[in-house]
Amino acid sequence: MSNLVIDMGNSRTKIAVFRDRQLIYHEAVQLTEKRIYELIKEFHITTSILSSVTKNEEFLKLLERDTTLIQFSHRYPASVKINYKTPETLGLDRLAGVIGAMQFYKNKNVLVIDCGTCITMDAITGGGQYSGGSISPGLNMRLKALHTFTDRLPLVNLNNDFTGWQGADTVNSILSGVLEGAFQEVLGFINKYVAAYPGLQVLLCGGDANFFDTRLKNSIFAPIVETEPALVLIGLNEVIHHYND
Amino acid sequence: MSNLVIDMGNSRTKIAVFRDRQLIYHEAVQLTEKRIYELIKEFHITTSILSSVTKNEEFLKLLERDTTLIQFSHRYPASVKINYKTPETLGLDRLAGVIGAMQFYKNKNVLVIDCGTCITMDAITGGGQYSGGSISPGLNMRLKALHTFTDRLPLVNLNNDFTGWQGADTVNSILSGVLEGAFQEVLGFINKYVAAYPGLQVLLCGGDANFFDTRLKNSIFAPIVETEPALVLIGLNEVIHHYND
Repeated sequence: MSNLVIDMGNSRTKIAVFRDRQLIYHEAVQLTEKRIYELIKEFHITTSILSSVTKNEEFLKLLERDTTLIQFSHRYPASVKINYKTPETLGLDRLAGVIGAMQFYKNKNVLVIDCGTCITMDAITGGGQYSGGSISPGLNMRLKALHTFTDRLPLVNLNNDFTGWQGADTVNSILSGVLEGAFQEVLGFINKYVAAYPGLQVLLCGGDANFFDTRLKNSIFAPIVETEPALVLIGLNEVIHHYND
Repeated sequence: MSNLVIDMGNSRTKIAVFRDRQLIYHEAVQLTEKRIYELIKEFHITTSILSSVTKNEEFLKLLERDTTLIQFSHRYPASVKINYKTPETLGLDRLAGVIGAMQFYKNKNVLVIDCGTCITMDAITGGGQYSGGSISPGLNMRLKALHTFTDRLPLVNLNNDFTGWQGADTVNSILSGVLEGAFQEVLGFINKYVAAYPGLQVLLCGGDANFFDTRLKNSIFAPIVETEPALVLIGLNEVIHHYND
């Protein structure tokens, strides 16, 4: 009796298998019907949940045939009270993230920062009230935008070495603007959330979480910062639990 | 005896006419040979300077025929000592901005923040030493990137009303991430520059300067912040002066 959790994001698909609340397998894949079929067989999947920004009829058909499928939407918020004014356009990752966060910090105000394609910030109160947050471009998107939307700036790679905070050539000026800039943005936002939400805990996830985690742990916010790479997947698994209980 | 100053940026061309150091005319235009010709006649232009991210042979030919033309490059830095490691890829706007800043604040450390297509930050010391800075996406570029590089986020317009700092629907989440995010980024950078450059003055320019000016004037940095919309044009006019003197 295992759950298959599928999170199809803008740039990557992440899948995980849970036995009850225990994460027993996860991977980031180019998802195919064949791979879904293999996972169902291998892990004796009985229930599945799919969170996707686009429709995938083939995947849905297969999951519906062989498992009890939940198509995650804002109508499955489990224990969250959504005060967001346009729930139908609320990113499913954002919603799954705050549901996951409630498992880690019950009755605590939590700020979820998902550092992926976009940097999304979402605060959930200890009472389960969700009111929104912010969306800004992620690190790679900023680098891609500078190259795409100007005539002469090069496409800079995140893997370039960059130390310090001021750039003394063009590549390092871009890395300064993107890395130090996004870090200062996140730091400034945390300051505002800390002032607005007493006893705030910050929970990071997403592909670039480590970059922010390391820097935040060198800041005054070190005591309240944690990273949980599988947060969105854990949140989706909670939706299955809520549905089954 | 007037100078024609042309700054062709990524998104707009700005032109100005100076009599000595006095700005007597300026406009943002879709530049044509006809318009250049008209301006030369109308203002009795004797000297011109062109700063462009791309080559414009027709404009160059016309300016060379009827005026003494300077094609601005990093080889015309006037009084600036360029420590930038790749001067050939240093944005000409950035260089012109710091040359302009030196006219306003002689012998003072100045941070120039150009809030245009990109947000560029460049510090120049009171001694005229320039060492670089940072480049990150401008406000409109961030909005465009969020729409272009994701499957479902809408293209949000800067003219949307946005108050507060946390977004309770998708449009306002994006405005929060982009407007409040970029402001926090700029604020954080100013903090770092203030610590590194004693007695720092901040000088804003570029199309979105007013947005940052208003917010910064509500921050602890109010006493050191000024805006000069024509800063880059003034810097280019200084290059003509340096060349003629």
